[in-house]
Amino acid sequence: MPNDPGPPAQLIALDWGTSSLRAYLIGGAGDILDRRAEPWGIMQVPPGGFAACFDTITFPWRARWPLLPALAAGMIGSAQGWVEAPYCPCPAGTAELAAGLVPVAGANLWIVPGVVQGRAAADTGSARPDVMRGEETQIAGALALRPTLHKASRLVMPGTHCKWVDIADGRIVRFATYMTGEVFAVLRQHSILGRLAPADAPPPSPDSAAFLHGVDTARDAAAGVASLLFSARARVLTGRMPAADSLDYLSGLLIGDEMRSALHWPSGMAAETGLPLTIIGDPALAARYRNALARFGVAQVDVLEDTAPAGLWHIAAAAGLLGAAHPPSGIAG
Amino acid sequence: MPNDPGPPAQLIALDWGTSSLRAYLIGGAGDILDRRAEPWGIMQVPPGGFAACFDTITFPWRARWPLLPALAAGMIGSAQGWVEAPYCPCPAGTAELAAGLVPVAGANLWIVPGVVQGRAAADTGSARPDVMRGEETQIAGALALRPTLHKASRLVMPGTHCKWVDIADGRIVRFATYMTGEVFAVLRQHSILGRLAPADAPPPSPDSAAFLHGVDTARDAAAGVASLLFSARARVLTGRMPAADSLDYLSGLLIGDEMRSALHWPSGMAAETGLPLTIIGDPALAARYRNALARFGVAQVDVLEDTAPAGLWHIAAAAGLLGAAHPPSGIAG
Repeated sequence: MPNDPGPPAQLIALDWGTSSLRAYLIGGAGDILDRRAEPWGIMQVPPGGFAACFDTITFPWRARWPLLPALAAGMIGSAQGWVEAPYCPCPAGTAELAAGLVPVAGANLWIVPGVVQGRAAADTGSARPDVMRGEETQIAGALALRPTLHKASRLVMPGTHCKWVDIADGRIVRFATYMTGEVFAVLRQHSILGRLAPADAPPPSPDSAAFLHGVDTARDAAAGVASLLFSARARVLTGRMPAADSLDYLSGLLIGDEMRSALHWPSGMAAETGLPLTIIGDPALAARYRNALARFGVAQVDVLEDTAPAGLWHIAAAAGLLGAAHPPSGIAG
Repeated sequence: MPNDPGPPAQLIALDWGTSSLRAYLIGGAGDILDRRAEPWGIMQVPPGGFAACFDTITFPWRARWPLLPALAAGMIGSAQGWVEAPYCPCPAGTAELAAGLVPVAGANLWIVPGVVQGRAAADTGSARPDVMRGEETQIAGALALRPTLHKASRLVMPGTHCKWVDIADGRIVRFATYMTGEVFAVLRQHSILGRLAPADAPPPSPDSAAFLHGVDTARDAAAGVASLLFSARARVLTGRMPAADSLDYLSGLLIGDEMRSALHWPSGMAAETGLPLTIIGDPALAARYRNALARFGVAQVDVLEDTAPAGLWHIAAAAGLLGAAHPPSGIAG
């Protein structure tokens, strides 16, 4: 059918972070019709800048549907991005995010704001200052995909900067950032702890004995993980651990410490709070976090991945961006 | 007096670490007659290797006193050094270190062993595996310079890998390593936290408000410092802290967390244990640690610096290396 007009595309959704750009063509039922990805994170845009990246990655879609709206989330809306989208204060849900979209001039593109808590200008009291950008959209997607999470739930979003997020009545009410992924990466690459392991060491295994021993060690420590880091070296030098296990152990220490803090171990536990715990992340990292949570007695954990497209779709819907492309309301109206 | 034989030189003392080589000519009363330094740490030895470094830095002294014995401490005795000097187990004092000296063939040079606790082959039970190399010699020097520390004391040795060391009856009985200095360095140079501060930012001030606020924040935290690291960024993004203060704050967080752990805060305090606390380190770093200790209610803190030469002198004396050069016993005997 050479003249098939194709499925009813409704939205171009962009997950545009620090190290990559993922683009999705989304149909009228929120279904992903096509997807593309480029390594054009905001820290490594090619010559031509953000506009050229946007034009190139969306070209095949816009060639066919010239008036398709686009919505982007992630660091593209930061001060280092294309257009800064000011943070939306907590509590923030899909409606608040949709109300805070910032347009990019001349591109038929909007950007989702990040979320802030504890901002000086609107001090909320006890909340520790914190920010997210990109995760709010994954959260909107998770809430859309799992309506049971709306009322009250806790989301764990592992990554470079892991977020633990409390949800109430469909909105982000509180969150905390743990630099676990970044600390692991810089210690592995730049500290004496990385030098013990073979240069071609595989990524830490999510269920190795060394990883779980690291989790347990951090869980049972009287103090924080900083006092334990050197043990990744000392255990090798004293013959208690093979050098090849040191990165698994270090990963376990850092993730175990994160959980000890986030779960208020030993005085409290997520399992006791009654909040269902859901991990949002890629399967390998999610498996590591799930195995670590089990060491804290938390066994019932749901896992979601790739929720950003659904989040962009639902935010676009809440903002009234959809249904404008066939034909665009601005022309038909 | 062109023919003045000079003072009675007795020992060449070498403090030979990862990044530098410091050499001292020591007289019969343990006094430093001359000193030299080169950036020839064991990770950056010039062509010719360790022997050439040793020959070059000691040449002027050995040209005059060819049979002067030399004693070295530090990473030069590690597996990556010149000759490996096996770790001496805890409890270890000057006598045990002296008994463990390892000769370097053909160089009239000996190397001081490091100290180990919790080695698998001789498990001491509850002691966490840990190692030191170089600090044991500084400790021997501190004990010689401050006899009041012999009976029972606690030493704090800030640096890349800060050591907290308990002394009883003149021997190292227990110690713990904190990677505070290295973690600060890698986070500053390689993580998102370092990007906030101006590239030419001065070193963290030992008594700035941002530093002390970081100390207090770590001290009062319910959990470890890893959960607080991102606050160094979030506080800037939320308008609560100028970007220029972020490194001072980060330094305070890391040092405060170290003290929270080492002092078993809040359940115990060094001031309550009755152990006098002594910092051994360069004045700028010692000032930072002293200011941080004050935030934990520890006000009585002695500070020593540059104790390695005295340590080498006393270990050499205990090993019977001294008194051999005028004339050397091997020739006169």
